[in-house]
Amino acid sequence: MAGIVLDLFFVLLAAKLGEELFRRIGQPVIAGEILAGVLIGPSVLGLVDLGEAVELFAELGVVFLLFWVGLENRIGKLHEVGPRALFVGAGGIIVPFVAGLGFGLAMGWEFTTCFFLGAALAATSTAITSATMLELGMIDSKPARIVLGAAVVDDVLALILLAIAAGMAEGQIDVTSISVTVALSLGFVAFFALGGTRLMAARPQILKDPKFADSPLLPAVLLCLGLAALAAQVGLAAIIGAFLAGLMVAETKEHHPVEEEIAPLYAFFPPFFFAYIGMQLDLGELADGETLLILAAVTLIAVVAKLIGAYMGTRGLDSRESRIIAVGMVPRGEVGIVAAGIGLAADVITPQIFAVVVAMSLITTLIVPAVLPRLTRAGDD
Amino acid sequence: MAGIVLDLFFVLLAAKLGEELFRRIGQPVIAGEILAGVLIGPSVLGLVDLGEAVELFAELGVVFLLFWVGLENRIGKLHEVGPRALFVGAGGIIVPFVAGLGFGLAMGWEFTTCFFLGAALAATSTAITSATMLELGMIDSKPARIVLGAAVVDDVLALILLAIAAGMAEGQIDVTSISVTVALSLGFVAFFALGGTRLMAARPQILKDPKFADSPLLPAVLLCLGLAALAAQVGLAAIIGAFLAGLMVAETKEHHPVEEEIAPLYAFFPPFFFAYIGMQLDLGELADGETLLILAAVTLIAVVAKLIGAYMGTRGLDSRESRIIAVGMVPRGEVGIVAAGIGLAADVITPQIFAVVVAMSLITTLIVPAVLPRLTRAGDD
Repeated sequence: MAGIVLDLFFVLLAAKLGEELFRRIGQPVIAGEILAGVLIGPSVLGLVDLGEAVELFAELGVVFLLFWVGLENRIGKLHEVGPRALFVGAGGIIVPFVAGLGFGLAMGWEFTTCFFLGAALAATSTAITSATMLELGMIDSKPARIVLGAAVVDDVLALILLAIAAGMAEGQIDVTSISVTVALSLGFVAFFALGGTRLMAARPQILKDPKFADSPLLPAVLLCLGLAALAAQVGLAAIIGAFLAGLMVAETKEHHPVEEEIAPLYAFFPPFFFAYIGMQLDLGELADGETLLILAAVTLIAVVAKLIGAYMGTRGLDSRESRIIAVGMVPRGEVGIVAAGIGLAADVITPQIFAVVVAMSLITTLIVPAVLPRLTRAGDD
Repeated sequence: MAGIVLDLFFVLLAAKLGEELFRRIGQPVIAGEILAGVLIGPSVLGLVDLGEAVELFAELGVVFLLFWVGLENRIGKLHEVGPRALFVGAGGIIVPFVAGLGFGLAMGWEFTTCFFLGAALAATSTAITSATMLELGMIDSKPARIVLGAAVVDDVLALILLAIAAGMAEGQIDVTSISVTVALSLGFVAFFALGGTRLMAARPQILKDPKFADSPLLPAVLLCLGLAALAAQVGLAAIIGAFLAGLMVAETKEHHPVEEEIAPLYAFFPPFFFAYIGMQLDLGELADGETLLILAAVTLIAVVAKLIGAYMGTRGLDSRESRIIAVGMVPRGEVGIVAAGIGLAADVITPQIFAVVVAMSLITTLIVPAVLPRLTRAGDD
């Protein structure tokens, strides 16, 4: 246990020193935290191992991050952008998926491998874009809401893709079970996004009803962890549950000091997530010419295909908003890594392609904090 | 990962429901959290396994609990009670140790086993008494300070006992290495209790100097995790480091809103610790007449010997304060369990005696929240 506490200390310290350095040189904070993770991770200094504890804190980091994002939004405003988010999400999935699949086939790889590559390229990491938008103070702007809505759409579509891919790896695709999973997921999102938020708006006191609740903090945190775990049970990402929990609690903001109480948890956990993304990079596996070429190609395809797909979905919006949205969809972050990880575990992706996808996820992730501030500064909000 | 988040959710939910029930029936909250742990643990419902993640959260729970206790104290006031704490701590260790050793020998057990039993009986869990005193609003009273000081003394003495016991289990006792460990530990405590608090009092702004620190929260948390890990490295309990970190940060309280920022972490983590103590109880192992008899005897000896030993150390104080201090030293909590766990791992303690020590630790732990409120109500503060 003592060693694990030391690991957690090192990860948090590294992330904060990375932030410190990047603040001082005027660079985006999240990039500093991720690159600090690369530095302390197995492939450079090897200060901290990729153990279960660090992974758990990374998972809780992204859970509390999306909980916070939900808390900073309101369901009423998300409704307005619903149809738009659907187009952006669908476009942002389909084009990169087809591009990734096509690239793999052109390389002569096995079909299942190509399908996984497509799924990894189709992924979107809301976490990175959300964190950047939080930093820029634009988390409740229209583009932010569209990206968030699109991410929910994405996650449901990615679920289908990954279920098909996993079925392929096992040799059979169970259409019934995939349909059930998708129906369950949609039901889960609809139930809490509509029913849950309405309940909270009607009865905000519910968070203070229990006698153990001197403040709404622990009921809110229990809701976050509970919906995160439940989302994972129905096949969605845990962060979708955390986001919905945040949206529910947001309906009580006028009644409780819930944001200031959750802020310390939001400050404590997410740095583990950002550092962990960096720690997963395997520089050794990337250190040959062919792999670097593949990485360059995959990253280029990942960026261009996502920009095109998402941009197509923004038709009708003004061009500044469209650009922000399209760039906001580019990061693959943890979602791309998870998709590739499933493929690696199922033995349909080689360690080489896994390393490429991780590196691509990291590079696409670093693009947003680097580019988004410029796009937002380019015009008025 | 999803299963682990679900486990954490269940543990936190159970602890809070236990608290809820006990609040409603007017019983001590901590007992409710511990008994909820018994209920969901392997020996009753088996809802949650004793995995590494739950253990880690329990460890962080007690770390943040003692950090908070440090934060609610001031080094200046602890100094005043120093000599008194030394007597209470020494008395509270020596009498139970001799009693436990003697009981084991009378039972005809092996000497090493008896030594471990003595060490487990000599343990003191500050966490439980501190939490109860926090609940009663008396954490900065004189008896509370004496118990806290005595706990630090205890931990150093227990370290010596456990090092000797572990040496016995391995067949040789390395006097040099034990001396070095003890010297290191005393140096560690002195360095941070004296130097660390002085530094903080002189330069409270140090917690806000880093650019990543919009508030003192993360520097304070890093100090807590860092000193907890360092304490474990020098051979002390991690909580001693956390307590010292709390004392250091307490010196800056006039300058920063540090308590209100750490309060949410203090609300979130410690319930895992209390529930975990309950989860470790193995009712199956206790379910025969002989074991229950041994348990009754060991628990009686544990309570009486600690009361006598600690009470002897309080000579000169008024009788009400003496009673509070003596009762406050009774809980063995996690410390007794850890001592027995080391013995179990080293194969010098049988599963039967381990189960007895865990049950004894739990029973002595429940005595404090049950009895302490009555003692404090008996007179004025």
